Amino acid sequence: MYSLAELADRFGLEFTGEAGKTLTGIAALAEAGPGDVAFLANRKYLSQLASTRAGAVILHPDLVSRCPVACLVTEAPYVAFARISHLFDRSPRFLPARHPSAVVSPDADVHPGASLGPNVVVEAGAVLAAGVVLGAGVYVGHDSRLGAGTRVGPNAVIYHDVHVGECCVIHAQAVLGADGFGFAQGPGGWEKVCQLGGVRVGDRVEIGACTTVDRGTLGHTVIADGAIIDNQVQVGHNCSIGKNTAIAGCAGLAGSTTIGANCTLAGGVGVVGHVEICDNVHVTGMTMVTKSITRPGSYSSGTPMTSTRQWKRNAVRFSQLDAIQRRLAALESPGKQPDKG
Amino acid sequence: MYSLAELADRFGLEFTGEAGKTLTGIAALAEAGPGDVAFLANRKYLSQLASTRAGAVILHPDLVSRCPVACLVTEAPYVAFARISHLFDRSPRFLPARHPSAVVSPDADVHPGASLGPNVVVEAGAVLAAGVVLGAGVYVGHDSRLGAGTRVGPNAVIYHDVHVGECCVIHAQAVLGADGFGFAQGPGGWEKVCQLGGVRVGDRVEIGACTTVDRGTLGHTVIADGAIIDNQVQVGHNCSIGKNTAIAGCAGLAGSTTIGANCTLAGGVGVVGHVEICDNVHVTGMTMVTKSITRPGSYSSGTPMTSTRQWKRNAVRFSQLDAIQRRLAALESPGKQPDKG
Amino acid sequence: MYSLAELADRFGLEFTGEAGKTLTGIAALAEAGPGDVAFLANRKYLSQLASTRAGAVILHPDLVSRCPVACLVTEAPYVAFARISHLFDRSPRFLPARHPSAVVSPDADVHPGASLGPNVVVEAGAVLAAGVVLGAGVYVGHDSRLGAGTRVGPNAVIYHDVHVGECCVIHAQAVLGADGFGFAQGPGGWEKVCQLGGVRVGDRVEIGACTTVDRGTLGHTVIADGAIIDNQVQVGHNCSIGKNTAIAGCAGLAGSTTIGANCTLAGGVGVVGHVEICDNVHVTGMTMVTKSITRPGSYSSGTPMTSTRQWKRNAVRFSQLDAIQRRLAALESPGKQPDKG
Repeated sequence: MYSLAELADRFGLEFTGEAGKTLTGIAALAEAGPGDVAFLANRKYLSQLASTRAGAVILHPDLVSRCPVACLVTEAPYVAFARISHLFDRSPRFLPARHPSAVVSPDADVHPGASLGPNVVVEAGAVLAAGVVLGAGVYVGHDSRLGAGTRVGPNAVIYHDVHVGECCVIHAQAVLGADGFGFAQGPGGWEKVCQLGGVRVGDRVEIGACTTVDRGTLGHTVIADGAIIDNQVQVGHNCSIGKNTAIAGCAGLAGSTTIGANCTLAGGVGVVGHVEICDNVHVTGMTMVTKSITRPGSYSSGTPMTSTRQWKRNAVRFSQLDAIQRRLAALESPGKQPDKG
Repeated sequence: MYSLAELADRFGLEFTGEAGKTLTGIAALAEAGPGDVAFLANRKYLSQLASTRAGAVILHPDLVSRCPVACLVTEAPYVAFARISHLFDRSPRFLPARHPSAVVSPDADVHPGASLGPNVVVEAGAVLAAGVVLGAGVYVGHDSRLGAGTRVGPNAVIYHDVHVGECCVIHAQAVLGADGFGFAQGPGGWEKVCQLGGVRVGDRVEIGACTTVDRGTLGHTVIADGAIIDNQVQVGHNCSIGKNTAIAGCAGLAGSTTIGANCTLAGGVGVVGHVEICDNVHVTGMTMVTKSITRPGSYSSGTPMTSTRQWKRNAVRFSQLDAIQRRLAALESPGKQPDKG
Repeated sequence: MYSLAELADRFGLEFTGEAGKTLTGIAALAEAGPGDVAFLANRKYLSQLASTRAGAVILHPDLVSRCPVACLVTEAPYVAFARISHLFDRSPRFLPARHPSAVVSPDADVHPGASLGPNVVVEAGAVLAAGVVLGAGVYVGHDSRLGAGTRVGPNAVIYHDVHVGECCVIHAQAVLGADGFGFAQGPGGWEKVCQLGGVRVGDRVEIGACTTVDRGTLGHTVIADGAIIDNQVQVGHNCSIGKNTAIAGCAGLAGSTTIGANCTLAGGVGVVGHVEICDNVHVTGMTMVTKSITRPGSYSSGTPMTSTRQWKRNAVRFSQLDAIQRRLAALESPGKQPDKG
């Protein structure tokens, strides 16, 4: 329970309205009641402001005059919302303790301030710092390290020689350090290349549920500080992901791909192996990145959705595109022999 | 072991052939032997009918005259096959019991008719109804609820505050209730938005292996009764999936997407965030849904597969499409200044 | 620790340089030090050769004259690298033993030379051959079989009636034998078809982390000897994958798809159900395979990445492609009535 003035003070916000107004929860603008803080960060929802029943709304200074209730005012309302959201977090806390069913090697170095859930397995040489939380069934392999405050969701698997920094969040079923997909085409079929490198993850990295980050073949696969990765993402061996880069769900990076800092890859993006993407690149959803990107900016591929009936016609024409352009060229230069293409 | 007449009677079918014929199994039309029931639902396989060695074939009335063996006759042969298939299910049954290795909070409410496999973890406040089956290693978080008859495959993870209805099937490694991908771009990098909502799943929902359904940011992520979701699907925070909607493998829904009832999304479809798809929409495989769909029907995007050699030419032309259309416009109106586009 | 001559002898290579030179590790050409073996398989990295500090480089006979250090010479340097990499594998070994927390049915047949990690569960009727390694938390269902030397990563799930051959590697969180996505559209919604088949995997198959291989509806889902499958791949019910076929990350195969031998599917490829791909087919990344492929060769779909600005224009034109071609046809035959198309 917080007063309006207390929230403003704690998060460096201006406010309008009664300083002592009590706020006990946080909710969406349309659903919020008189005890709730709400927020307006996307002007798409501006129409909901006039009728909101929220106790207070976090919003931009421009919008104060339109708000029928108390305001928490900031140039960056979504950031303020993010920060305030933590006050109302009721998710379960895990106390520093080792569940009796945890199987911890005597040769592991586990800080007494770490929390190990039921059926956790920690192998020899592993190092877990203070405040580490391992959910039920988590596996931490030989010589792997988790920094202070890093939390790992149930049943996630950290293979051997994987170092994760401080204050990271790794969700359920994520896999760090499975073998990269490295095979040589031998005379009798595929021959496995041993995957001898590890994984190195910086601080404040988030890795989503069912996301896989392969170990390096020789050197390491690297994820820099502050990178955030959604669910169902595949990060191939020896990839390098830059600082504060965000990768949305279902994206896939083939091996030895380098992505710079402050990039955003939208959902379903695929990046071919052995290319480089420079800093400050945005790639829109489901784009197929088949070559390096050397200039900041936004990149896309794909075709727009239409009715299937219309799509079928256009898709047939796509298959004839090269011919279409040659026909066009022939019309433009009637005398010329058509290019064999 | 069933007689032909018994099957017909139990499932409301007509039959031709000897009423007392014994049927002991179920098999595909081409592989079935004299003790097997087979079915013909897709006319693509009609050529296999004449030579079938099945004991009886489930088929449409139109095809009875072409069938060399006994028939189980119905307008909806695939539905009859689905129902009869359950008679021949030999998959393992799990008795109501709690494996001694299960770790169950004394503050959880577990019905004695639930079956808890080895290494299951059930946290405080969780409620498991009669007939719930938790495979080995399943995790059920604080205050989560599973309705009567719901089965969960090995190592699946149900985070806290996830409610699942009755008679659902959740396959191995599925994750319900991991954090949504919510971050604000702060001055020093991404700042996490606490994901305070839960997940609400209706009755008779199926959720595939390695599928992830994120919890809501403020309100809940919702999956309505009878929806079926295949493997490797990503459902973002605050999505809402309508009744009886089917989503095939590898599809991905970004956050706050609403999908109506009776929709089908084929494999690999991607849906951008904050859009709405109305009821009765079909989206073909790998389509990129970038805007709301307000009318029932079938929708598509993408380009058809060709040889790589031909594709390369057409793909180059795609990059020139805007120029091609301007060249065309210039030919159509020779006097006019070309549009700057 | 190996001498140069010893490596050459063991792997059937020629060598140049001092026979007794000691090699203690393996590293990339650019990072290798005097004790390391390096390799040059991709001429893209040829520029790194002149300045390498490696102890010896595995390379093609053509390049020996350009190499400043000792050489291990072969027509197939990447294969030699793959083989030599195993000498330097320092990944943890798991001794034949059964961790006391493993839950093994008395009706399972577990070879004493198998290694069962903590919290492993092995159900009745399962058969584990010599040298099988089950990582922590692995589940092996009723009547499933793992051949000699097959290793399974932590928390992977092998459902019932799944047979895996010898010397396979299955990575963490993989799921073999979850139900196929089979439902009939009944009058009151989807009706589940029991998935009565199993999964049959040959020898020397690799299956990546978070990859799912569904069981068959009636017959089995089949993966032939030597096939390699990367992470996050979905293999639908009753698929058949041929010998030595490679499938890269995030690919998805719908049900009843047949893929021949020696095929390669690049990352993110999607294959519709009930089609056949013949032997020796290569499909480039993110291609949508919507029909059978009956001739060996390389196949593609999709559009090339450009700046989003340029893409938007071209994408609009794609939606007008059919109209564009009709306009073109009208220009080509000015007298003719335009095709209603």
